Amino acid sequence: MKNVSEMLNKLSNLDFKNMYNKDFLLTWEKTHDELEAVLTVAEILKSLRMNNISTRIFDSGLAISQFRDNSTRTRFSFASAANLLGLTVADLDEGKSQIAHGETVRETANMVSFMAEVIGIRDDMFIGKGNAYMREVSKAVQQGYEDGVLEQRPTIVNLQCDIDHPTQSMADLLHLINYFGGIENLRGKKIAMTWAYSPSYGKPLSVPQGIIGLMTRMGMEVVLAHPEGYGLMPEVVEIARENAKQSGGKFSIANSMQEAFENADVVYPKSWAPFWAMEMRTQLYDKGDFDGIKNLEKELLAENAKYKDWECNKDMMKLTKNGNALYMHCLPADITGVSCKAGEVSAEVFEKYRVELYKEAGYKPYIIAAMIFLSKVENPIKTIEKIINNGKPRFLK
Amino acid sequence: MKNVSEMLNKLSNLDFKNMYNKDFLLTWEKTHDELEAVLTVAEILKSLRMNNISTRIFDSGLAISQFRDNSTRTRFSFASAANLLGLTVADLDEGKSQIAHGETVRETANMVSFMAEVIGIRDDMFIGKGNAYMREVSKAVQQGYEDGVLEQRPTIVNLQCDIDHPTQSMADLLHLINYFGGIENLRGKKIAMTWAYSPSYGKPLSVPQGIIGLMTRMGMEVVLAHPEGYGLMPEVVEIARENAKQSGGKFSIANSMQEAFENADVVYPKSWAPFWAMEMRTQLYDKGDFDGIKNLEKELLAENAKYKDWECNKDMMKLTKNGNALYMHCLPADITGVSCKAGEVSAEVFEKYRVELYKEAGYKPYIIAAMIFLSKVENPIKTIEKIINNGKPRFLK
Amino acid sequence: MKNVSEMLNKLSNLDFKNMYNKDFLLTWEKTHDELEAVLTVAEILKSLRMNNISTRIFDSGLAISQFRDNSTRTRFSFASAANLLGLTVADLDEGKSQIAHGETVRETANMVSFMAEVIGIRDDMFIGKGNAYMREVSKAVQQGYEDGVLEQRPTIVNLQCDIDHPTQSMADLLHLINYFGGIENLRGKKIAMTWAYSPSYGKPLSVPQGIIGLMTRMGMEVVLAHPEGYGLMPEVVEIARENAKQSGGKFSIANSMQEAFENADVVYPKSWAPFWAMEMRTQLYDKGDFDGIKNLEKELLAENAKYKDWECNKDMMKLTKNGNALYMHCLPADITGVSCKAGEVSAEVFEKYRVELYKEAGYKPYIIAAMIFLSKVENPIKTIEKIINNGKPRFLK
Repeated sequence: MKNVSEMLNKLSNLDFKNMYNKDFLLTWEKTHDELEAVLTVAEILKSLRMNNISTRIFDSGLAISQFRDNSTRTRFSFASAANLLGLTVADLDEGKSQIAHGETVRETANMVSFMAEVIGIRDDMFIGKGNAYMREVSKAVQQGYEDGVLEQRPTIVNLQCDIDHPTQSMADLLHLINYFGGIENLRGKKIAMTWAYSPSYGKPLSVPQGIIGLMTRMGMEVVLAHPEGYGLMPEVVEIARENAKQSGGKFSIANSMQEAFENADVVYPKSWAPFWAMEMRTQLYDKGDFDGIKNLEKELLAENAKYKDWECNKDMMKLTKNGNALYMHCLPADITGVSCKAGEVSAEVFEKYRVELYKEAGYKPYIIAAMIFLSKVENPIKTIEKIINNGKPRFLK
Repeated sequence: MKNVSEMLNKLSNLDFKNMYNKDFLLTWEKTHDELEAVLTVAEILKSLRMNNISTRIFDSGLAISQFRDNSTRTRFSFASAANLLGLTVADLDEGKSQIAHGETVRETANMVSFMAEVIGIRDDMFIGKGNAYMREVSKAVQQGYEDGVLEQRPTIVNLQCDIDHPTQSMADLLHLINYFGGIENLRGKKIAMTWAYSPSYGKPLSVPQGIIGLMTRMGMEVVLAHPEGYGLMPEVVEIARENAKQSGGKFSIANSMQEAFENADVVYPKSWAPFWAMEMRTQLYDKGDFDGIKNLEKELLAENAKYKDWECNKDMMKLTKNGNALYMHCLPADITGVSCKAGEVSAEVFEKYRVELYKEAGYKPYIIAAMIFLSKVENPIKTIEKIINNGKPRFLK
Repeated sequence: MKNVSEMLNKLSNLDFKNMYNKDFLLTWEKTHDELEAVLTVAEILKSLRMNNISTRIFDSGLAISQFRDNSTRTRFSFASAANLLGLTVADLDEGKSQIAHGETVRETANMVSFMAEVIGIRDDMFIGKGNAYMREVSKAVQQGYEDGVLEQRPTIVNLQCDIDHPTQSMADLLHLINYFGGIENLRGKKIAMTWAYSPSYGKPLSVPQGIIGLMTRMGMEVVLAHPEGYGLMPEVVEIARENAKQSGGKFSIANSMQEAFENADVVYPKSWAPFWAMEMRTQLYDKGDFDGIKNLEKELLAENAKYKDWECNKDMMKLTKNGNALYMHCLPADITGVSCKAGEVSAEVFEKYRVELYKEAGYKPYIIAAMIFLSKVENPIKTIEKIINNGKPRFLK
């Protein structure tokens, strides 16, 4: 497998030793080398699987998944990644469990982790809560490991929080790398991360924040566009600005989809709720003020409705580089005339890019597997070589 | 293992190459050789397991299960089959997932299938919907595979739809083969697939339809019996009639349980709702007319109540060949005095055949495993020989 | 692995051949040797895992879990144990399944067990029901096995019933053995199993009953303490008394926490509902008298409130041996000022023992695995030696 040895070669030139026994919570907490290591290991795992070589490094072990919000894609991506490495998913469902009954996070985190290698968490509903919860769990299992309670230190993988959605943005990045033929080719490319109209309300900020936080690391020209009042978390915008400086890329904010699409190589039109609204909703939930939530929802839907022209359609696409930019979305998209009357994207544009969108999503299981692999395995290169030498078939054909 | 080599020998004389990468949706879409291949591989897998040889051909891979109706038996049979081959079940639960939220079938089918080898679906509630849904999923993953979205093409296995229940009817057939000592001994045997009284309402048509659609392939004399108005789907009845012609068997419709039981070798008394009623119910659901549904239910229960004498009891059984026909049921049965006041079968008859009924159900995991095996493995005989030569124990005793 | 060979040596001096193909329902149905075998195999499995040797003795097979009451710890302990041995958990959820719809226990038990090696059951809500249900399931699969319906005989493991909580008490015992440096050192040690105040109501009796039923086997001085009217099942108290006689230990009942704590080496303060109340609640549920249940709850909470001084705090602990007894709990505990206003234990005492409490819980997965191992494997010593000789890594580092 020629390309695998090339990728191992590449891996050997990257410094990622600090990923060992560490979590993956925010892309901007990782070095550029560490991000490249994830991308490279993801490609290696994909290539090994396609060559029917089993990458099952665990003969036993659990992968805990905790979804505090609905999920199909990420749930199955996590299940696929765990399975690819030999881990068995155990769902921590607060319905089934006793967490609801006043049990502390620390205790539960340890109680479920005696044989857990990884804990994947989605907690994206409330500002200031999701990522904080993940860190609380991380601290709990780290302490449990140090205290000799846990025989291994489970890795926390962020499956979407209030701040970032690293498994999504990294999958998106790997898609871009393959689409443009190499990470080096992303330098200078313009990506438009723009708000788009949706009849639904309260969509998380983590995807747009994840995209501007990550793509600015790659020397890209990142334009964030949204109607006035639909701003993201200020800290994350600051991080994007700083990243662009560091990487020699660009970061700017526009107030129209047109401006953002202008000559863009990549467009990522997606709906989200204003940061201030997500914050207010969080406070209303804390107070249990459900009338307040209803009113906020009405207000936001009315506000959204003012911006129905923020739709990614054929005319918009004409503005992009050669009218031929790559259209991206984390899915599911609100498709005009398909999943709703008026939405984020026209059926025509969506159809044109459907296969690419599916491929984009297809990287996620490998990205998650790579995140787990790099955190659990002390010497990834040596272990990958062992896997190749063992040459155990994934599927006894 | 003498009998395994005999069965491999038999397999080598069957033509089943077209099963590779194909779904299993209706038994009458399969050739006689293909059905025999499923039966033979099921027996081989059973024999290997009983000889403590692991048939785990997958070192990783997912088996997606989607149950749009309750299930215990089939759920566990599918889980057992997947596990026997080394696949891990991932449940596509529309409660947990986002499907409910307007996501297209095509997209979801691909999103969950990046590492899926098989998708087992139960969708039996609504006429014209279940089997159609399975074909929609099949088309979606076939296209995803051709577009390079999916690295493998997941097999769709029909775990009960509105038309057929192939994993049930094939397990029933394997039971008959073992009971009568060979598939050739089924020729000319009379099987009575008769309606029976049940206090419950709206039971699917897929079991009786599956039985008349399959057993008529085996040269059996199949008698379908039901009260007037309780007819099955006309197309399926037509298929049964045609099958009987082809196979040199017989197919007829009787209007009394007595007539059907007369000199029967096998009886399969089971309740079902009239086809017209299932169709009407589907339309009422489409319209959201829940009063209409309530009224229909009342009407049907009243209609059912006219036929309480359609019970499989000792006197009925006396009419069968030497009063000793084999009693079959897909379970759970409505047992008079046990699970209901008056039902499909008397406690006495059920008790006499209980062990046989349990064995009948016990073939289902192997049938499902065989369906998966024959669709995934390009050269089943060679792979089975590899399994035997590896001789890996299922259980390290 | 020196200590493993020592433990194998110990194992070879124990008589546990009767555990083969037997259930684990009550500790007092097992001989002292059998209990020691479980403890020893648990330690061996733990040691092998820590030495990165895979103990996956099953290449395929299901572990059915049925939780008729909420559970986090035990659910994950069972999942961990099954996974450690190579079994895949399949959840028998009466919500999902058809059991609710009048299907007999016998039938369901067989239908889910065609490839099941173990069935773990929690059924602790109703007096006279839980353990009885487990025996019914056991009888069903035993008969299925004898009738040739099942190819293997699934082991029933009691994951908490109305009478005992053997996986908890055995994990507690293993914790004591490690804490005091050997089972022989438990002889003569005083353990106080005392009631403690909790604002919640209707906690099962199985933990205190399990503790007095097991620790009296070890030659310990067991003191059961509770307010008047909070007695346990008389039969179990009788068993404890008898055990103490047999083992040369002591068993007594005190009416104050102080008296029980006096000079104790170990304290186990935990809330439970009075036996008479649990019995009455069971009858009320049988009658469907929900007002009666509400009234009983009120009454019990009021009764509980009289005993808020039954709290394990610093002053209470001062009464114990050198003010330094080991504090135990099955978790989650009602911690004063943390999970409730006033509870079973002060935050200060809980904090001091938190790590020990977590370690106590950490033995449960190994205890469950050992119970399964000793029931499934005909010659455990030989199999463990095979595992060591194979030396297959659990984790390919």
